[in-house]
Amino acid sequence: MSKFKNVGIVGLGLIGGSLALEIKKRGIAVCVTGFSKRLSTLKKAKEQGLIDEYLVNFEDGLKDLDFLVIATPINVIKNYFVQIKRCKPALFVIDVASVKERVVKDADAILGWNSNFVSCHPIAGSEKSGIDAVKERLFENKFVIVTPSEHTREENLLKVKEFWRLLGSIPVIMSPSEHDRLLALTSHLPHLVVYSLISLVEESGEKRERLSNCIGTGFLDTTRIGKSSPELWTEIFMANKKNLFFWISKFEQNLSEIKEMLGKNSCEKLTEKLKILKQIREELDEKGRDI
Amino acid sequence: MSKFKNVGIVGLGLIGGSLALEIKKRGIAVCVTGFSKRLSTLKKAKEQGLIDEYLVNFEDGLKDLDFLVIATPINVIKNYFVQIKRCKPALFVIDVASVKERVVKDADAILGWNSNFVSCHPIAGSEKSGIDAVKERLFENKFVIVTPSEHTREENLLKVKEFWRLLGSIPVIMSPSEHDRLLALTSHLPHLVVYSLISLVEESGEKRERLSNCIGTGFLDTTRIGKSSPELWTEIFMANKKNLFFWISKFEQNLSEIKEMLGKNSCEKLTEKLKILKQIREELDEKGRDI
Repeated sequence: MSKFKNVGIVGLGLIGGSLALEIKKRGIAVCVTGFSKRLSTLKKAKEQGLIDEYLVNFEDGLKDLDFLVIATPINVIKNYFVQIKRCKPALFVIDVASVKERVVKDADAILGWNSNFVSCHPIAGSEKSGIDAVKERLFENKFVIVTPSEHTREENLLKVKEFWRLLGSIPVIMSPSEHDRLLALTSHLPHLVVYSLISLVEESGEKRERLSNCIGTGFLDTTRIGKSSPELWTEIFMANKKNLFFWISKFEQNLSEIKEMLGKNSCEKLTEKLKILKQIREELDEKGRDI
Repeated sequence: MSKFKNVGIVGLGLIGGSLALEIKKRGIAVCVTGFSKRLSTLKKAKEQGLIDEYLVNFEDGLKDLDFLVIATPINVIKNYFVQIKRCKPALFVIDVASVKERVVKDADAILGWNSNFVSCHPIAGSEKSGIDAVKERLFENKFVIVTPSEHTREENLLKVKEFWRLLGSIPVIMSPSEHDRLLALTSHLPHLVVYSLISLVEESGEKRERLSNCIGTGFLDTTRIGKSSPELWTEIFMANKKNLFFWISKFEQNLSEIKEMLGKNSCEKLTEKLKILKQIREELDEKGRDI
């Protein structure tokens, strides 16, 4: 038996499209309805069998849904809350954005404290974006951070956790502020730092061809996330600015410490530090394997 | 017909061991002789068929060689130069270290201006090290930066280029100083920055398990090079300190500019910048594919 009758997904990019694919494949819903501002995306999603139906007008489709996933850029989520409040305020809704404090605050303010909204962030994705990046089993064995507000009902939390488990994911509960603080360190700061590394290639004044000759897989792997969507990442950086500034400042302190070791020729001290860091990094791989 | 009678390789780690493997596989030498301070490494190399013979005493083996590859850590290369000068000063020798100015300067000072030494740096490798990391076809379609000094003879340069071409590599000529300046940007700075990112995980005061829940493939790929050898990278950072400081300072300036855009909410400006960086990064992938 399917868990839902009609799941709506607004935004059919990498995350929304891959969710549609898995929901259909795993029979989690009888019908998956796609919403997007772009008719071309909806047509493609239908052709590729990601969705059963589509509607350009969001409010028209809302009445028939029993579950809605908002998988749009952060900055427009608020607008959807307004429309949900107007047309179907009791709808079971989740979002999948990368920054949570703002979304949860907006949801509480617009949908109200007795809504059936739960905010989520699957730690899954890639540097690719858009419907052409849709990937099978994207959420399998991946953590999904679920960030309830103080008003979130226990039954909705259970329902959301079950939904993610059906996709093969591992739900983890965090407060929106813990999520944003940790993600700023594990994802947003690395993106920012990588953009800065690529900037140097541009601004170095060195000939691009000569630089290319000196680029190996290390540089390419390290900077892969620099191919991510500029619009998406501008929004993420802006939305999580406070935490990002905190970690940038810690990062700068750390860089200064390493510079000091270099300046003082503290080889042993530096090697000791790098040994610890190597071990920490290897442990992170193992954590991944445990899942 | 083999190009060399007896090729010696001192240091049988990832690079030295993989070179031995390819030289044998491609029949570039009649005999490959391994040198290492560790008898266990030599025995393993022999067992795995990477080398034909081995000698613990370097000077004893030198007399029978017609080509020597120094694939040891940077800091001990000088000692080998001293022994070569003493026992077989006209031997055709290359090194494969990641920093070139110091090695070329030492070679000129110790081996003299009429030696047959040519300094090289294959842009190939991985975060792994040691004989267990040896990899087939490691040098295929990879650039190898060859850094002659003002004394390097044209015939030796041609011989070295041919050697690398036999391994499937693409030799590129640069001055030692250009090499060190560019590699500081494309390899040494990224390593330093990655170590700083991993440091934050350690020093954040956040619970490791909670952080792990927030770590996806982006963080893991970006920081993969943080698993590199601590000893090797301490040496590289120290040996190329001058260039590294230059790029760190540029990097810090760049980070400040991005911080300013965030502080001023300059979304459009930031998106424009990220668009350019995404394009540059994609072009680097294409350069790799052209090879």
